[in-house]
Amino acid sequence: MGLTTVRTETDSLGMKEVPASAYYGIQTQRALENFPITGVTIHPELVAALAHVKKAAAKANMDLGRLPESIGQAIVRSADEVIAGQWADQFVVDSIQGGAGTSINMNMNEVLANRALELMGHSKGDYFHCSPNNHVNMSQSTNDAVPTAIRIAAYLLTERLLGTMREVRAGFVRKQREFDDVLKSGRTHLQDAVPIRMGQEFGAYGKVLERDIGRISRASSGLLIVNMGATAVGTGLNASVDYIRLVVRHLADELKLPLQSAPDLVDATQNTDAYTELSASLKVCAVNLSKICNDIRLMASGPLAGLNELLLPPRQPGSSIMPGKVNPVMAEVVNQVAFQVMGNDLTIAMASEAGQFELNVMGPVIAFNLLQSLHIMQKALHVFNVYALEGMEANRARCQAYVDQSFGIVTALNPHLGYDVASQLVKEALATGSNIKDIIMERQLLTAEEMNEILDPLQMTTPGIAGEHLLDGRG
Amino acid sequence: MGLTTVRTETDSLGMKEVPASAYYGIQTQRALENFPITGVTIHPELVAALAHVKKAAAKANMDLGRLPESIGQAIVRSADEVIAGQWADQFVVDSIQGGAGTSINMNMNEVLANRALELMGHSKGDYFHCSPNNHVNMSQSTNDAVPTAIRIAAYLLTERLLGTMREVRAGFVRKQREFDDVLKSGRTHLQDAVPIRMGQEFGAYGKVLERDIGRISRASSGLLIVNMGATAVGTGLNASVDYIRLVVRHLADELKLPLQSAPDLVDATQNTDAYTELSASLKVCAVNLSKICNDIRLMASGPLAGLNELLLPPRQPGSSIMPGKVNPVMAEVVNQVAFQVMGNDLTIAMASEAGQFELNVMGPVIAFNLLQSLHIMQKALHVFNVYALEGMEANRARCQAYVDQSFGIVTALNPHLGYDVASQLVKEALATGSNIKDIIMERQLLTAEEMNEILDPLQMTTPGIAGEHLLDGRG
Amino acid sequence: MGLTTVRTETDSLGMKEVPASAYYGIQTQRALENFPITGVTIHPELVAALAHVKKAAAKANMDLGRLPESIGQAIVRSADEVIAGQWADQFVVDSIQGGAGTSINMNMNEVLANRALELMGHSKGDYFHCSPNNHVNMSQSTNDAVPTAIRIAAYLLTERLLGTMREVRAGFVRKQREFDDVLKSGRTHLQDAVPIRMGQEFGAYGKVLERDIGRISRASSGLLIVNMGATAVGTGLNASVDYIRLVVRHLADELKLPLQSAPDLVDATQNTDAYTELSASLKVCAVNLSKICNDIRLMASGPLAGLNELLLPPRQPGSSIMPGKVNPVMAEVVNQVAFQVMGNDLTIAMASEAGQFELNVMGPVIAFNLLQSLHIMQKALHVFNVYALEGMEANRARCQAYVDQSFGIVTALNPHLGYDVASQLVKEALATGSNIKDIIMERQLLTAEEMNEILDPLQMTTPGIAGEHLLDGRG
Amino acid sequence: MGLTTVRTETDSLGMKEVPASAYYGIQTQRALENFPITGVTIHPELVAALAHVKKAAAKANMDLGRLPESIGQAIVRSADEVIAGQWADQFVVDSIQGGAGTSINMNMNEVLANRALELMGHSKGDYFHCSPNNHVNMSQSTNDAVPTAIRIAAYLLTERLLGTMREVRAGFVRKQREFDDVLKSGRTHLQDAVPIRMGQEFGAYGKVLERDIGRISRASSGLLIVNMGATAVGTGLNASVDYIRLVVRHLADELKLPLQSAPDLVDATQNTDAYTELSASLKVCAVNLSKICNDIRLMASGPLAGLNELLLPPRQPGSSIMPGKVNPVMAEVVNQVAFQVMGNDLTIAMASEAGQFELNVMGPVIAFNLLQSLHIMQKALHVFNVYALEGMEANRARCQAYVDQSFGIVTALNPHLGYDVASQLVKEALATGSNIKDIIMERQLLTAEEMNEILDPLQMTTPGIAGEHLLDGRG
Repeated sequence: MGLTTVRTETDSLGMKEVPASAYYGIQTQRALENFPITGVTIHPELVAALAHVKKAAAKANMDLGRLPESIGQAIVRSADEVIAGQWADQFVVDSIQGGAGTSINMNMNEVLANRALELMGHSKGDYFHCSPNNHVNMSQSTNDAVPTAIRIAAYLLTERLLGTMREVRAGFVRKQREFDDVLKSGRTHLQDAVPIRMGQEFGAYGKVLERDIGRISRASSGLLIVNMGATAVGTGLNASVDYIRLVVRHLADELKLPLQSAPDLVDATQNTDAYTELSASLKVCAVNLSKICNDIRLMASGPLAGLNELLLPPRQPGSSIMPGKVNPVMAEVVNQVAFQVMGNDLTIAMASEAGQFELNVMGPVIAFNLLQSLHIMQKALHVFNVYALEGMEANRARCQAYVDQSFGIVTALNPHLGYDVASQLVKEALATGSNIKDIIMERQLLTAEEMNEILDPLQMTTPGIAGEHLLDGRG
Repeated sequence: MGLTTVRTETDSLGMKEVPASAYYGIQTQRALENFPITGVTIHPELVAALAHVKKAAAKANMDLGRLPESIGQAIVRSADEVIAGQWADQFVVDSIQGGAGTSINMNMNEVLANRALELMGHSKGDYFHCSPNNHVNMSQSTNDAVPTAIRIAAYLLTERLLGTMREVRAGFVRKQREFDDVLKSGRTHLQDAVPIRMGQEFGAYGKVLERDIGRISRASSGLLIVNMGATAVGTGLNASVDYIRLVVRHLADELKLPLQSAPDLVDATQNTDAYTELSASLKVCAVNLSKICNDIRLMASGPLAGLNELLLPPRQPGSSIMPGKVNPVMAEVVNQVAFQVMGNDLTIAMASEAGQFELNVMGPVIAFNLLQSLHIMQKALHVFNVYALEGMEANRARCQAYVDQSFGIVTALNPHLGYDVASQLVKEALATGSNIKDIIMERQLLTAEEMNEILDPLQMTTPGIAGEHLLDGRG
Repeated sequence: MGLTTVRTETDSLGMKEVPASAYYGIQTQRALENFPITGVTIHPELVAALAHVKKAAAKANMDLGRLPESIGQAIVRSADEVIAGQWADQFVVDSIQGGAGTSINMNMNEVLANRALELMGHSKGDYFHCSPNNHVNMSQSTNDAVPTAIRIAAYLLTERLLGTMREVRAGFVRKQREFDDVLKSGRTHLQDAVPIRMGQEFGAYGKVLERDIGRISRASSGLLIVNMGATAVGTGLNASVDYIRLVVRHLADELKLPLQSAPDLVDATQNTDAYTELSASLKVCAVNLSKICNDIRLMASGPLAGLNELLLPPRQPGSSIMPGKVNPVMAEVVNQVAFQVMGNDLTIAMASEAGQFELNVMGPVIAFNLLQSLHIMQKALHVFNVYALEGMEANRARCQAYVDQSFGIVTALNPHLGYDVASQLVKEALATGSNIKDIIMERQLLTAEEMNEILDPLQMTTPGIAGEHLLDGRG
Repeated sequence: MGLTTVRTETDSLGMKEVPASAYYGIQTQRALENFPITGVTIHPELVAALAHVKKAAAKANMDLGRLPESIGQAIVRSADEVIAGQWADQFVVDSIQGGAGTSINMNMNEVLANRALELMGHSKGDYFHCSPNNHVNMSQSTNDAVPTAIRIAAYLLTERLLGTMREVRAGFVRKQREFDDVLKSGRTHLQDAVPIRMGQEFGAYGKVLERDIGRISRASSGLLIVNMGATAVGTGLNASVDYIRLVVRHLADELKLPLQSAPDLVDATQNTDAYTELSASLKVCAVNLSKICNDIRLMASGPLAGLNELLLPPRQPGSSIMPGKVNPVMAEVVNQVAFQVMGNDLTIAMASEAGQFELNVMGPVIAFNLLQSLHIMQKALHVFNVYALEGMEANRARCQAYVDQSFGIVTALNPHLGYDVASQLVKEALATGSNIKDIIMERQLLTAEEMNEILDPLQMTTPGIAGEHLLDGRG
C-alpha cells in the first residue's frame, strides 16, 4: 500500500475522493454510489460508440478553432484507445441509472480527460489542462452525445443481428430444398389436416424470417439520424451550425456509416420512437421465432411417445436423471430469448411513454434493454443455426406413415362427392377402424382409378382440384 | 314527428339540446359527443353498483336531515328501478372516456334525477326540484362514488368467477379420479420421460386452479374497502363523519357485503392497487389456464397424426373444407381468453401507473378491462367445463402403447446399473431398434425377475426406488 | 307468427333447432352455445369484408363454370345486401371464439346461403339448392377466407385511421406556426432548462406523428397480400390456379384495392406477422401519443397551482363536486386509448406466438384486438383533434414569465465563462434570491452589452453560440 | 505451466476437452458452447441455494446409507465452500440456456464432484470415485433440485427486499409526520383541487407500500413449498419416501427456513405459479412505486418554472452542459427499475405459459428475470431511501402560496350556496382576476364571519362540512 491511494476531486456539489488509479473522476464516483442497481455495466458497443462521438466532437471543435490542438489530439488519442478496448475496466457506471445518461456521459468525459491529461504529461484530476466538461464535452450535452452513441451502438448490433438472420434464413432455404419431397400430414388446430411437404413448412419459416429481416432493417435505418448539436433541448444552444455539420461528418467518416443530422433537433431529442420502433420489430421477429421453435420442438417430440418427424443433432445429455434423454435445447433457448425480447420491448415502451417535454430521462433503461435484445437475439440465432438447424434431419418414414394413416386426404373428395358425404366417410372410418379407400370401393362411390387419382397425397400439396377433368366429364 | 323532440339543458359551460325522451341530461350529452370511442357502454354490473351507491348516499343524507325525504325517496325508488335493469338503455356513455368517470357518474346522476323528477310529478330537466349535482350527488364526488361502484361490481363478478372456477376445479378432481389408472408416458421438453398417470396430471391441474381460487379470492378482498366520503381528494370535504359511517353501512346492508370504510381515504382515493392486484391474480390464473389448455390440446392432437391420448366431446364441425374434422375449440377459446386477460392486465397496469397526485384519472379504462377480464374468464371457464371437461375421455390403449414403447422407464435402472450404463442401453436400443429388456437379458445385467420388478411402470408413478431391496442385498 | 318458430338443421355432428326467422344456421347456432364470451359481435368492417370475399369467390367459381350461375348470382346478390349492412343482426357469433374463425366463416356462409335460397324461392335450410359449404364456401377454407377478410377490414380501418392522423398532424403543424413566437422555459427531468419556443415543441409532436403515419402505412401494406386459394393449409388443395388468379382479381376490382396473391400460400396461411407488425406500429404510435398528451396535460395544469402554459377548450364540467373545474378530458381519453392499444398489442403478440404448424387458431382474438385498436385510435384522435387541438391557446404571459425567472439561460455563458463559473452563479442566485444578471454586472464578468447579447433567450432557441464573435475577439 | 492445460472428459454424447484447472466438467463445457447468450452468469444467490440443495441431498442419502460417508462428506464440504463463495468463478453457465436448468444443475454437480475428488485426494475428472450424476445428483433430477434452489434464492432475496421496503415505508411515515402541517393544493387531473396536507400524501405512499409489503410477503410464502424428491416428473421415481422427508428437513435446518415438501409433487414440478405470483406482486408494487416517484418528480419540478413544492437532496450535477442543474435522479432510477420489473414480469408470464406437460423448460429465463427483479428493486429502493427520501424537504412557502391562490376551496361553498352558484364564482374570478372572497363579499352571499369559517383551507383537509352549523341554522 502506498502513500496516496485516493485523489480528491471537486464539482459543483462539493468534494469527493476517487481512487488514485482511476481514470474516471468525481461524477462517476457519485454515480457508483447513487446507482448500484443491476451490477451490469454498460454494453461495450455503447462505450465504443460514445468514444467515437467524443472523438468526432473534438475534431469538429479543432476544425473550428475552438479546441486547442494539443488538448484535442490528446482527446482523440484517448478515444482511440477506448475504442480499441483499452480502458474497458474504467466504464463502471451501472446500466440502469437516473439522469438520462449523464453518468454514462460523464464517465466517458472523465476517462478521456484523465487519459488525455496523462498523455499530455499532466496528473489525473488536473482538469485545468483538459476538463471533462469544458473540453471533452465541448459543444455537447448528455442529451445529444448519449442518444447518438446509443443509436450507433444499436445500429451496429442490428447489422450483426441481420447478418446472422440472413444465415438462418439461408439455413431454412437449404432445408426447404432438402425436405422438399418429405410428404407429411398437415396439421391445423393440432388436428390432422391435408398433406403438406416438410420443405413447404421450412420454406414458410424462411419467408417469415425474410420479412423480419426487412422489418428490422427498415426500423434500424431510423437510427442513422442523429441529434448531435441538439445540446440540451434540441435548440442547438452552444453548438454552431458549422459544428453540427462537421461533427456528423467526422462521425460518419470514422464509422463508415451514412449518418445524417436530424432535420429537426428538438424532435430528435425529445422523441424515442427510433428505439421503440426497432424494439417492436425485434418483438415481431421474436414472436415468429418462438412459433418456429415451437413447431420444431413439436416435430422433434418423442422419440417414441411423440411426433418424431424431425431429428435434431444432440447437443448435450438432456437430463441429470433420465439416461439417454436428449432435449431440443437449441430451440428452447431461442424460445427463452424470444420471451426476454418481448419483455424488454414492454420495458422500452413504458420507458418511452414516460418521456416528458424536451427529453426522455429513461434513456438508460431503454438502451440497456434494446442493446440486450439485439445482443441475445444474435447470439441465440447463431448457435441455433450452427448447432440445430444445419444438422436437422427429417424422419421420412414416420412422416410418410402419418400421411398414410391420416384422414386429411378426404378433403380432395369434396369436389367429387360433396362435403357431407366425405364427412360421413371419415366418421365411419374412425368408428369402424376401416380404411377410407376400402369404404369408397365397397360403396362404389368412385372407380379405383378415379379414387387413386383423386387421393394422391403428393398432388394435394400444390394448388388444384385433384381429378378436375373427372368433374368436367360429369358436368 | 311531434312538436318537441328535444329539450334544452344548461350547465356551467352553457346550453345544449338533449332528446326529450332521454332520462340522461346535458352532461351525458356532452360525454356522447366527446367520447364516441369503443361503442361499448359500461358493464351492467357497474351500472347497478353505482345505482346502489346513489341509493345508499340518499339514505344517509336523509338520515342526517340534509336531503328532504320527498326528493330522497324518489331517488331511492329510481335507483331501485335502475338496479332492476329498467333503464338500461339510458346508460349510454362509452367505456373509455376522459375525466376519471365523471361522465359515468353524471350519466347516473342525471338519469336518477330525471326519473325522480318524473316520479315526483315534475318535468325532466326541471332540476330545481331534484338536481343531479346537489341532490343525487350530495356528499359525493366522482372520485369516491365511481371507484366504490367499480369495486362492488368487480367484487360481484369475482364471486361469480370463483363459483365457476370451483366447478372447473371439481371437474379436474373428478377426472383425476377417473383417469387415476391411466398409465401414460410422462413428457418433459416434449421428450419421452418416465411414466406417469393421467390422473396425476389432472390432479395437478386441479391443484393449480385451487391456488388460483385462493389468489383471486384474496385479491378480491381488497375490493371490500371503499372510499365513500373521500369526496374529491380523500380529505372528506363536504362529507361529515356521520355520513361516511352511514353511507357505508347502508351500502353494506343493501348488498349484503362486508364493506368497510377505508381507514385512510386519501390513500384509498389516489391508489388503484386493489385493481392491479386483482388483475394480476387473474393474469396468473390465465397463464395457468393457457398451459392446461395447451396440454389438453396436445393430448387431444391427432387423431392419427398426433398424440391422441385424450378424446374431447365434439362441439362443432371443425372445418368448412376438411370433412370430419373436429377441433378442440373449447380449449382454444380459453387460450384466447387467457391472452385477452394478459393484455388487459397490461392496460390496467399502465393506466394505474399513470395516476398522479390525489387521483388516477385513467379509471374508466381500468374498469373496462378489469370487468371484461372477470366477465370473459367466467364465461369461458363455464363453457369449457360443461362442453369439454365433463365429457373428456382417456384413450387408454394409446396411452398404454406409448408407455410400452418409450424408453423413459430406464431411469429406474440408475440405482442398479448407474446412469452411464443406462444411457448406453438407450443409445443401443434406439440405434438397433431392439427392446431395452432384450438387451438387458442378453447381457445378463439383471435377472428376469429383478428386471421386471425394477421396470414396472406403474410403480414408477409413486415415490421410491424400484427394487430397493435388491440394492440393500448388494450393498 | 305461426306454429313453427324454429326449424331443424343437420350437420355432421347431428341435428339442432335454429330460430325459423334466422338466416344463420346450425353451425352458427352451435357457436352461440359454445362461445358466449364477450357479448361483442364481430366488427362490421369484418362482416363486410368477408361478404366481399364470398362474392369474389362466387364470381371466380362462376367464371370457371364450377358454380351454376343461378346459385352464384343469388350468392352475389346476398353478399351485396350484407355489404350494404342489410343483415347486420344476423352476424351473431362472439368476437372471441375457438376454431380459428370457423364460426365467423360459417355464420357468413349460412346467412348468404339462406338469403340466396330465399332469393331463389326456396326455403331457409333447404341447402340442397344452395349449401353453405359446397356453394358459398366453394374453393375456400376458413383458413383463407377469414384471414383475407381480416386483412381487408384491417386495411380499410387503417386507411381511415391514417386519414385522421394526417388531420392531427396538420393540426400540430398549424399550432407549430401559431406558437412559433411563444418563448417558454425548456424542461428536462422536469427541471428548468434552456429556453425553447412552444412552436418547436408542437413541431416535434407533428414530426413524430408524421413518422408514425409512415410506420403504420408501411405496416399496413403487408395486409394487401392475401392467401385466397390457400384453402386448408396453404397448399391450395381444391383451389385451381385459375381460381386463385380470378378470385383475387375480383376482390381487388370490387374493393378498388391493389390486393395481391401471396407468392407462398403456405407461408401466408401459417404466419400472422402482418397483424403483429401492424399492431406493433400502432403501439409505437400509442407510446408517442401518450407522451404528447402527458405533455399537453402538464402544460395545461393549473390554472393557479400548475404550469398553466396552455389553455384547452373546456369540453365538460370537470367535477361533480368541485365547481368551475375543467379537466383535460380529450387528452386523457387519448392516454387511455394508448394504454388499451398497448394491452391489445400484447394480446395479439401472445396469440400470434401461439400459432402451430399450418395455422394460427387464435385468429379471432387477434382480429378482435387489432380491429379494436384501429377503431379506437381513429375515434380518439378525431375527437382530440376537433375538441382539443384546434382550440388550444398558449398562455403567452405565463410562458414568458417562466423564461424570465428561470436560470436555464446561464448555459449560454459556458463558452464565455466556463461551466464551473456558470454553476457558481446559479448556486449563488438560488441561495441569495439575486438576479443572475445583477451578479454578473456586480462582478464585472461581462460588459452589459456582452451580457445582453449572450443572454438573449430568443437567440438561444436556434443553433449557435450566443456572442460567438466575442470569443473570436478574445481567442 | 505444464504440457497439459486441458483434460478430456466423456459423457453419453462423447468426449470433450475441459480446461485442466476447471472444477466444472464436460457438461458445463457443452453448455458454454451451446449458450453464449447474455454473458451474465447465474445469480450468486442461486449458486448458493443450489449448493445447499446438494448438501442436503448428500446428507439425506448418507442417512439412508445410499451414499458412502467418504464421498458424502466430501460433497458436503465442497458445498460449504461454494456457499461461502469460494468457487464463484467456476459457475460459468449463462443465465439464459436451453434445457430447463440442466446446465445449471450439471455445473454444480461437476464443480462439487471435482472439488470433492480433490478433497479425497483424487484427480479432477476421475468420476469413478465421485460422479456428478451418480453421487452428487443422487436421488435428484434437475427438475427438483433447480426449482428448489430457485425458490430458496428467490425467497431469500424477497426477505432482503421486504426489509428495505419496510425501511422505505418507515421513511414515508416519518415524512407523513414531518409534512403533516404543510398545507398544499390538492390536484386531480393535474388541475387545482381542494386543499390537502403534504403529510396526507406521504401517508398514502406509506399505506400503499405497506400493502405491497403484505402482497409480496404473502406471494413469497409459496416459495417455501419445495419439490425435492419429485425427481424427473414429480412421481418421485428413484427417490424414497424417507429420502424426501430427510432432504427437506436437512435443507430447512441448514437454511433455518420453514420449508415444506409439496403435498403433490407432480403439481409442484409442472407448475410455475409460485414464480408468476411473486413476479406479479412485484409488478403491482412497481406500478405503485412508479406513480409515487412520478408525484415526487412533479412536486420537485422547477425550481422556477415548475411546481417546486418539494426539495430533494442534490446527488450529482444534473447536466454536462447546463450549469447548476440538479435532477431528481434517485426517483428516476426507481421509475426505470419499475419499468424493468414490469417487462421482466411479462417475460416470466410468457415463459410460464410455455410450460408443457410435466415440466416448464423455460425455468432459466424465469429465474433470470425473477431474481433480477428482486435484486434491482431492493437496490433501487435502498438508495432511493437513503439518498432521496430521508433528506426531502417541503417548500412550505410555495405550497401555501398555491393554496392561497387556487380556487379549489370553493367546493366548501356547495352546501351553502349550491354547486351552480359556486361554479359561477369561479368563472367570474378567472375571467376578471378578482379574488373569490371579494366577490362573495361584494354580492353579500355570506357574512365575512361565515365566509371565513367556511373557507378555512386547513379544515377542508379533514372530513366534514365546513360551517355545518350554519346550514342547521337555516334549515
